[in-house]
Amino acid sequence: MKNLSVVVTVAQVTALLSCTSATFGASADFADIEAQVVRQHDDGVRRLQEWIQLPSIAAENLGYPEGPQHLIALLQAVGFQKATVLETDGKPGVFATLDAGAARTLGVYMMYDVKQFDTAAWSSPPLDAALVDKPGLGKVMVGRGAVNQKGPEMAFLEALRAVKAAGKKLPVNLVLVAEGEEEIGSPHIGQIVLRPEVQAALANTLGVFMPSASQSPDGVVTVSLGAKGVIEVQLTARGEQWGRGPGKDIHSSLKAMVDSPVWHLVHALNTLVSADGNTITIDDYPQPRPISAAEKDMITEAAKRQDEEQLRQRLSTPYWIDDLPFDEALTRLVSEPTVNIEGLVGGYTGPGGKTVLPHMAQAKLDLRLVPNMTAGGALAALEAHLDRHGFGDIEVNFSGGYDPTSTPADAELIQAQIRVLKASGIDPVLWPRSAGSYPGYVFTGAPLNLASGHFGLGHGSGAHGPDEYFVIESNNPNIEGWDGAVMSYVRYLYELGQ
Amino acid sequence: MKNLSVVVTVAQVTALLSCTSATFGASADFADIEAQVVRQHDDGVRRLQEWIQLPSIAAENLGYPEGPQHLIALLQAVGFQKATVLETDGKPGVFATLDAGAARTLGVYMMYDVKQFDTAAWSSPPLDAALVDKPGLGKVMVGRGAVNQKGPEMAFLEALRAVKAAGKKLPVNLVLVAEGEEEIGSPHIGQIVLRPEVQAALANTLGVFMPSASQSPDGVVTVSLGAKGVIEVQLTARGEQWGRGPGKDIHSSLKAMVDSPVWHLVHALNTLVSADGNTITIDDYPQPRPISAAEKDMITEAAKRQDEEQLRQRLSTPYWIDDLPFDEALTRLVSEPTVNIEGLVGGYTGPGGKTVLPHMAQAKLDLRLVPNMTAGGALAALEAHLDRHGFGDIEVNFSGGYDPTSTPADAELIQAQIRVLKASGIDPVLWPRSAGSYPGYVFTGAPLNLASGHFGLGHGSGAHGPDEYFVIESNNPNIEGWDGAVMSYVRYLYELGQ
Repeated sequence: MKNLSVVVTVAQVTALLSCTSATFGASADFADIEAQVVRQHDDGVRRLQEWIQLPSIAAENLGYPEGPQHLIALLQAVGFQKATVLETDGKPGVFATLDAGAARTLGVYMMYDVKQFDTAAWSSPPLDAALVDKPGLGKVMVGRGAVNQKGPEMAFLEALRAVKAAGKKLPVNLVLVAEGEEEIGSPHIGQIVLRPEVQAALANTLGVFMPSASQSPDGVVTVSLGAKGVIEVQLTARGEQWGRGPGKDIHSSLKAMVDSPVWHLVHALNTLVSADGNTITIDDYPQPRPISAAEKDMITEAAKRQDEEQLRQRLSTPYWIDDLPFDEALTRLVSEPTVNIEGLVGGYTGPGGKTVLPHMAQAKLDLRLVPNMTAGGALAALEAHLDRHGFGDIEVNFSGGYDPTSTPADAELIQAQIRVLKASGIDPVLWPRSAGSYPGYVFTGAPLNLASGHFGLGHGSGAHGPDEYFVIESNNPNIEGWDGAVMSYVRYLYELGQ
Repeated sequence: MKNLSVVVTVAQVTALLSCTSATFGASADFADIEAQVVRQHDDGVRRLQEWIQLPSIAAENLGYPEGPQHLIALLQAVGFQKATVLETDGKPGVFATLDAGAARTLGVYMMYDVKQFDTAAWSSPPLDAALVDKPGLGKVMVGRGAVNQKGPEMAFLEALRAVKAAGKKLPVNLVLVAEGEEEIGSPHIGQIVLRPEVQAALANTLGVFMPSASQSPDGVVTVSLGAKGVIEVQLTARGEQWGRGPGKDIHSSLKAMVDSPVWHLVHALNTLVSADGNTITIDDYPQPRPISAAEKDMITEAAKRQDEEQLRQRLSTPYWIDDLPFDEALTRLVSEPTVNIEGLVGGYTGPGGKTVLPHMAQAKLDLRLVPNMTAGGALAALEAHLDRHGFGDIEVNFSGGYDPTSTPADAELIQAQIRVLKASGIDPVLWPRSAGSYPGYVFTGAPLNLASGHFGLGHGSGAHGPDEYFVIESNNPNIEGWDGAVMSYVRYLYELGQ
């Protein structure tokens, strides 16, 4: 739902400011492949443009079945022997395998869908995938899905293409799963991943990674060992459901004799958290696993290397919760569950006022989850709490979410990332858990119990917003352009294949 | 701000179901005038159409100075010897006098502005003022301002025209004030009414009435002795103002380390009313005057004559507050101040969810006031309360409002209404106080201390909404059409002039 590139500001919490990455040099081992990457550069960029021009958006039922069909063609072209559509109760998934005759097999997780867009807000149309100069970065491709997630995914596919075209044998076999509902919370990811033949194929992998653009313009790369879980729920108070307030908007003067569903919602919300909004007070709420010493050490280290003041400015936030010092605020970020109000909407929402007593109001919440908590457990506790406190009439619409995910630092999937980054002159920041969320639980949880993570050089931003971009030609020494991103995957595959 | 026709459902709380009104017969006294009313019918309807086609909307700065100029021309045409624009700090007012050489002088209050409209929602364009057949009513004029308030006001002006054209002397002198900001809460009404020459002229009147369409299709006419006051305020919590939350929307995962202005607003709201939303808990809030025995008697009588079940259905409200019996719910409607949430808006308000931590949220409130309370006193108490409870950062934007207004039942302005209605076969319901609001306080309060009320037969509905209408040709025996409405003002003027 919220892959890591979406929460780049969170990843950057852990950022080193002075670290620099070297452009991949012409290493003897990779010279042929790198030459091929350069040769296929223009075609690869064009292939990314064509993909962006074909959006699949689950919330709008747009681009199905073209989306999975197009992905299958892309996979077949870079060497996947098998690539099939998997139907689900929602949008279809894709399952593909590439048998390279290698000793090890790597799992790959992709999404082929993108977030909705509002064309009017973009400076370059979101489906043009135009190349645009961006100060401080270079030439970037602007388009919906450019960084979330088609750009990094296409760079990974171009790595496979380059290895093949250079006449090399891929050093690992691949098992790939892709979904078309990531942006609506991956409601059917289990129907793809836990299908018997898919589960069996994934069980043989050393873990599952998602291609990602992990460089920030200051040169920092974060290696995250997991992510919080999340549930998104809309709480709706309606007079007709409550059986007390009005069933339609009525004149506000009637408040003197008619109950208000809006006040009902406000009072329900008030029972969920402490008066400062920061401590969850939902009855019998799942308790988080306390932070471990190893996690605390990572945070202490990251806090030292991060410019707190710069982060405050970027977030336009003068103080952390309870005026905590930075390392304790970061500890909270990593280890504490949250109840956040994403939005409130009810009654008259235009300028000024309008004298109505609204018949309904809605609060949109997201609740982030940490280890020892499950999406189902959190939802059940919320519903039971509302019921117990006299708010059982309030509709709780669960619109998406999943459990937290964790991978041990010593997993080969992670250690190989660290070795590739260090060999490239990058000292990555190890981070216990992204505060954002992605559906890694389906890989790291039972029955698969695999490692899962993100990897990839390159940079982009603007996921979910307007002018989303991915850097194609970098003029910033701290970030790789297209070819460097492609080569990062080549090196990762070879590192894992050793 | 909210004139009585807007709260027709409230007026109908007091409705008699079986009461019927007779069409004005050709009384000997009024035969000449009535014949003239029939003769000028088509021209009068056209004059109303032309007025509707020239909207003045303060919130949109539309139709100034054309609005007051047009009204002045209308007033001059029906015999006002003086009619001038009065500048204010906002939109101009109009002051006009008609000296008929009569013994008594009547004050008239008008508004020349109308509510905003959304043309797309209308079945007939709001500025076309088209005549449309409406089942159960007859031929109605559909247009913005048709009933609120141009239709009744034009009918009153046509009454003056008819008396004049019939060669009669008007039985009362007139002092008229009009404003162009009624729909934004009459912020400068005092600058019009309390101007020395206006105040002096009004001081000689027997009270001030506003033309109004007071008939409901079931034949009921309510005579209201006042109206609640109101203040409308928007409470806005902003991170930048608070100095704690973010100054822009940030990723929701950051809730773990950043305070939320939305939660801050929710907790502030929670301190304003009791857990059921119905008892005001603002510290040191002005106390209402207890209901009098006379008021209680009126309510008891009205409750008996009203079909409670029909009202519940119209309001789609199965229970009144605290499951009160009808007369007690009506007592609350008349006598209790309220704190109502008109709307909530903050963060993401579209379908489903979006993972943001919003930097601001707003609650739009209206607070109705009863005698012994003032708009200024209520606002000051609200601000002091928020400050004392740790919410002093929350912006309180007062967007309009005024004090309550009351007129004694024995005022000649009221008694003359009752006599005219009874002479027409209508047994009016006397009602202590409309739960809606209009700026009558400027007439009934110091220094003028006059009587103030609404009067007029005819029917319309849809004020503030789409398809606002006023009945021109009635086929419903319970309501008057255009000519009947015009004649109701003729009779009222003669009754007052006796």
